[in-house]
Amino acid sequence: MNVSPQREGRLFGVGLGPGDPELLTIKAARVIEAAPVVAFFAKKGAPGKARTIVDRWLGSQCLELPLIYPLTTEIHFHDPAYVEDLRAFYAQAAQTIAAHLSGGRDVALVCEGDPLFYGSFMHIYIRLKDRFEIEVVPGVTGMSGCWSAAKLPMAWGDDIVSVLPGTLEGALLARHLSSSDAAIIIKIGANLAKIRAAIAQAGRLKTAIYVEQGTAKAEKIIPLAEKTDDQAPYFSLVLIPGEGRRP
Amino acid sequence: MNVSPQREGRLFGVGLGPGDPELLTIKAARVIEAAPVVAFFAKKGAPGKARTIVDRWLGSQCLELPLIYPLTTEIHFHDPAYVEDLRAFYAQAAQTIAAHLSGGRDVALVCEGDPLFYGSFMHIYIRLKDRFEIEVVPGVTGMSGCWSAAKLPMAWGDDIVSVLPGTLEGALLARHLSSSDAAIIIKIGANLAKIRAAIAQAGRLKTAIYVEQGTAKAEKIIPLAEKTDDQAPYFSLVLIPGEGRRP
Ligand SMILES: C[S@@+](CC[C@H](N)C(=O)[O-])C[C@H]1O[C@@H](n2cnc3c(N)ncnc32)[C@H](O)[C@@H]1O
Ligand SMILES: C[S@@+](CC[C@H](N)C(=O)[O-])C[C@H]1O[C@@H](n2cnc3c(N)ncnc32)[C@H](O)[C@@H]1O
Repeated sequence: MNVSPQREGRLFGVGLGPGDPELLTIKAARVIEAAPVVAFFAKKGAPGKARTIVDRWLGSQCLELPLIYPLTTEIHFHDPAYVEDLRAFYAQAAQTIAAHLSGGRDVALVCEGDPLFYGSFMHIYIRLKDRFEIEVVPGVTGMSGCWSAAKLPMAWGDDIVSVLPGTLEGALLARHLSSSDAAIIIKIGANLAKIRAAIAQAGRLKTAIYVEQGTAKAEKIIPLAEKTDDQAPYFSLVLIPGEGRRP
Repeated sequence: MNVSPQREGRLFGVGLGPGDPELLTIKAARVIEAAPVVAFFAKKGAPGKARTIVDRWLGSQCLELPLIYPLTTEIHFHDPAYVEDLRAFYAQAAQTIAAHLSGGRDVALVCEGDPLFYGSFMHIYIRLKDRFEIEVVPGVTGMSGCWSAAKLPMAWGDDIVSVLPGTLEGALLARHLSSSDAAIIIKIGANLAKIRAAIAQAGRLKTAIYVEQGTAKAEKIIPLAEKTDDQAPYFSLVLIPGEGRRP
């Protein structure tokens, strides 16, 4: 008797888009509906944004695999113990996913926006890429969702566009804001006061738009200059549009 | 008898994604299938990439509205006559679309990638935004499609990402390549030799990846250092990935 070796499962990194569940791609929906295992990152005690977006696309037989971050508090990347915890967490998550793949089950690891653009998927990808077949399904980024919701043409002609994490030093932000035509500042959270000062220093406060939860139900859009407080959730960003060539 | 005034049509700017027709969003497909008029930009004598991607999503009753660019040759933005031609073309295209909207017909203006990211849709948008209701459906950008096809994690942690048009001066490109963690160089065409030199000057040739027609049938992916000629079509770009924080 000839027993053929079991086929290994494939890992799919699937982008879910900015928040509106209709902004998933056709391919993403197809891959998710067919996946026996759907994995997603979340924090303890909350379903997480990825799980919320993907809800209507889950197959009826699918096994949900939440990957729960070790800490619920704000991230402290300067704390070596925290980095160690995170490393152990990603290693463990990769192992859990690998067990399903070895068992012949495809896994869709779903993530907000695009998987390879500041996405947690990348931490699993680098750990498994030499052992398993992996496919990446791109997604609409959070920033595309935000500038579409704000109806803000972002980049024209020869414009230079910079994506700047708001976690960076104010002086560095200001320098890049001055040398770019358009900018998107992500990872706002507790950094809004510093970001606002850097934008003002670069003389660009007048055109800056603040967007919270772009394309999702809780969406808020307001010129940054009119936002009177410095409170911002994790899913918020600031858009500074380019003004290049327009015949 | 009471004749209610005819409702005006709405304009939708619809992103089609990078090339693979399955990388359209669910919302884009829905809007296109329902649209009585589907408009797209094209060059004389060729269907154009947008028309090719959208093919399978067109409703059976839909009127196709090709908007044909005035010139088929390479673009010369320093030529004032060309800029004048282009301005007249966009004004005419906007008027044609406006006639459908005034007649009560919704129009879906479809475009490659994301409509508000270097998209021609923006030239119509600024001409019609004060007269008609306009909605923008974001799309997966060409660059997301390319780095997904190349399986290249692009931005990590606090990485700064720059999008640089290859039409810019070599020295400016080199400066931005040196001050960014990750970069995407778009609009390659006839500029590849200059772009290659700027990348080398910034010391980043080793990790640069060249992608042509990402996610489409004609896709080609090759390390830039291994590409022996300087031929590149319009739909090509160079990716230089970030190497930031990875626990
Ligand atoms: C770690 S990055 C992940 C980006 C994601 N992979 C993408 O492609 O959009 C998370 C940051 O993206 C921004 N972001 C993503 N989606 C957003 C949305 N719908 N509204 C506002 N900001 C968003 C926020 O600045 C947030 O801090
Ligand atoms: C005028 S910009 C339009 C960008 C589009 N709106 C988007 O969001 O991707 C056109 C440039 O995008 C890049 N591009 C777009 N799609 C691409 C693809 N599938 N493969 C390679 N390059 C692409 C090329 O550099 C091209 O010159």
